[in-house]
Amino acid sequence: MIVSWVTPNELGNSTVMYGGAPDKLELRAEGVHTRYDYFNYTSGFIHHCFLKNLKHRTKYYYAMGFGHTVRTFWFTTPPKPGPDVPYKFGLIGDLGQTFDSNITLSHYEENGGDAVLFVGDLSYADNHPLHDNNRWDTWGRFAERSVAYQPWIWTAGNHELDFAPELGETAPFKPFTHRYPTPHRAAGSTEPFWYSVRMASAHVIVLASYSAYGKYTPQWAWLQDELARVDRKVTPWLIVLMHSPWYNSNSYHYMEGETMRVQFERWLVDARADLVLAGHVHSYERSHRVSNVAYDIINGKSTPARDAAAPVYVTIGDGGNIEGIADNFTQPQPSYSAFREASFGHATLEIKNRTHAYYAWHRNQDGAKVVADGVWLTNRYWLPTQDDTN
Amino acid sequence: MIVSWVTPNELGNSTVMYGGAPDKLELRAEGVHTRYDYFNYTSGFIHHCFLKNLKHRTKYYYAMGFGHTVRTFWFTTPPKPGPDVPYKFGLIGDLGQTFDSNITLSHYEENGGDAVLFVGDLSYADNHPLHDNNRWDTWGRFAERSVAYQPWIWTAGNHELDFAPELGETAPFKPFTHRYPTPHRAAGSTEPFWYSVRMASAHVIVLASYSAYGKYTPQWAWLQDELARVDRKVTPWLIVLMHSPWYNSNSYHYMEGETMRVQFERWLVDARADLVLAGHVHSYERSHRVSNVAYDIINGKSTPARDAAAPVYVTIGDGGNIEGIADNFTQPQPSYSAFREASFGHATLEIKNRTHAYYAWHRNQDGAKVVADGVWLTNRYWLPTQDDTN
Repeated sequence: MIVSWVTPNELGNSTVMYGGAPDKLELRAEGVHTRYDYFNYTSGFIHHCFLKNLKHRTKYYYAMGFGHTVRTFWFTTPPKPGPDVPYKFGLIGDLGQTFDSNITLSHYEENGGDAVLFVGDLSYADNHPLHDNNRWDTWGRFAERSVAYQPWIWTAGNHELDFAPELGETAPFKPFTHRYPTPHRAAGSTEPFWYSVRMASAHVIVLASYSAYGKYTPQWAWLQDELARVDRKVTPWLIVLMHSPWYNSNSYHYMEGETMRVQFERWLVDARADLVLAGHVHSYERSHRVSNVAYDIINGKSTPARDAAAPVYVTIGDGGNIEGIADNFTQPQPSYSAFREASFGHATLEIKNRTHAYYAWHRNQDGAKVVADGVWLTNRYWLPTQDDTN
Repeated sequence: MIVSWVTPNELGNSTVMYGGAPDKLELRAEGVHTRYDYFNYTSGFIHHCFLKNLKHRTKYYYAMGFGHTVRTFWFTTPPKPGPDVPYKFGLIGDLGQTFDSNITLSHYEENGGDAVLFVGDLSYADNHPLHDNNRWDTWGRFAERSVAYQPWIWTAGNHELDFAPELGETAPFKPFTHRYPTPHRAAGSTEPFWYSVRMASAHVIVLASYSAYGKYTPQWAWLQDELARVDRKVTPWLIVLMHSPWYNSNSYHYMEGETMRVQFERWLVDARADLVLAGHVHSYERSHRVSNVAYDIINGKSTPARDAAAPVYVTIGDGGNIEGIADNFTQPQPSYSAFREASFGHATLEIKNRTHAYYAWHRNQDGAKVVADGVWLTNRYWLPTQDDTN
């Protein structure tokens, strides 16, 4: 587990004490700290501490700020990977820090979940003048109530780029990489933007929409190797995260994901990926199991078609953002689209065993407990021919 | 002009003296030096010296190695940009350092040219055990006979990646960026892999097949701005370089360029680009003026079609390489392909004025002076509707 926090004015130290009870924090880990400048902003001291050798499925309390203001939190580690280990993911994207963001996060907390798969666009600091990085700090405080208590798996969105040559800021992802490290080295990745984690019965692959993915590039090479490492007998559920969706029938960001789809879709279909999650579009959409991989330039076969081997694509960029809802769908609804609606919300994925998982989208206007779109997903490895989206 | 050289054993200095005659080197520029380690290899001292305030269309002699071994070379600067200024480019890709490479370079020298547009894959060091970087040194010595005497415009190919995590080498393009700097800052670019130069009547844009090009990325943002900066009244000829071709009917690397084509083709058609040059495929091919930009996912319109507004695509990856000729074309020849042949060679582009340029491919087996494929190209800005490839 990587524990990160900011001390705004004083360095303090990067020590985390942790253990099985709040008054028995007997384990100790030393972290590191960093900070960064962004145009006219200087960050606080950003601490990252890597807690190793944790036991599976165990509640730990942890504390930091020793010598100044000690704060104590807790988390429960994921269970040991195994094919029938149940687990519940929250699926959230494009969260931001608006009233809607707050409702989304509150509803997710009510629904309960073991970990969040976050598909990018955290703070929207870049929508403020000079990419006001104070908004990165306020977002950290806003999200702490969940992020401090369970794993959040980070995907880099376009609002993490903070590429602003007009401000002299030419290193993409500067605030994001300083603030939100990912366990990419443990996944054999050379960059923090693409990596994987195994949790319970799920193998989760995070891809980078805004890094290079052409043939021979580091991300391409890594994904090829990573797909070969997936063992569906241990982790039957193969879930892929990215920011920019491949199947989106909203006019907003329409076809933006094409370039990456063209490169990687064949691999995900061949790998029998179960679920591909994206954000970016501030709306909700779920696809049928479809693929679009027959095109060879001269055969004209470029229309998405039903394919039981293909993943379900979910666009869950409806977290709350700051730019408003994306309410301009293409008409008519294309055949690849199973359900779409311009409402804020979040989703949950409850993996029950190796064959079945219940997926549910919760609109903000209904309250947390109402499912506006729910389907039972069957596993592509163990039940590969069952078209569960019909 | 950027002058680069290596001193293998001693640092020496990075000074260049230059002037209008070999015995009148009255101007002085101070360069910088760098070096790098690559696995078990340590480079010599790599010097880069930027000669500023040069006059257009002027022959300069230049020398370096003062205090040790002085060597003197010369170059002629390009003429001032203007719409009817003639200029002759050599077009070379995938050169390598084989017998074929030597023939290609010799033929180019016989044909004469003012500057080389090089579409990537220089040394093929990565095809040798441990990416033997001595091959980067030998390639520099091999190519010196041309590179030291006229501008070579560099494009990064896949053999420049040298990405080898198994050797602990995880920074892409490490040897290339240390050895071959590009004038990217002068072009408003934030990375050396995409940039532009204006020479005579040509505006040359270099794109990076192995960097990120998705929407919002630095290359994407730069290209959008750069296309707006092109002034066809001053530089009528818009030429785009990349490594991986968008229109290739060879089985080798078939469709590898699709992902970048999907992202950028519309822009180049709208910009009325004249000529798109690529390498990568170790063979030769020239397209008709075609485009494939009508696809909207559901309309099925995904077949390349004749389009007088579109550029001609040339694959000139037949420089010599080390991997052999790519002699397995798809059959039948698709309608977008005008001419294709599995032979080594190079091409020349002789711009005559704002409306006409003579393009010629020279196969190695015919000698330099024989044109195996030649066409008059008419300018897309000044003669936009003339289909010159019929």
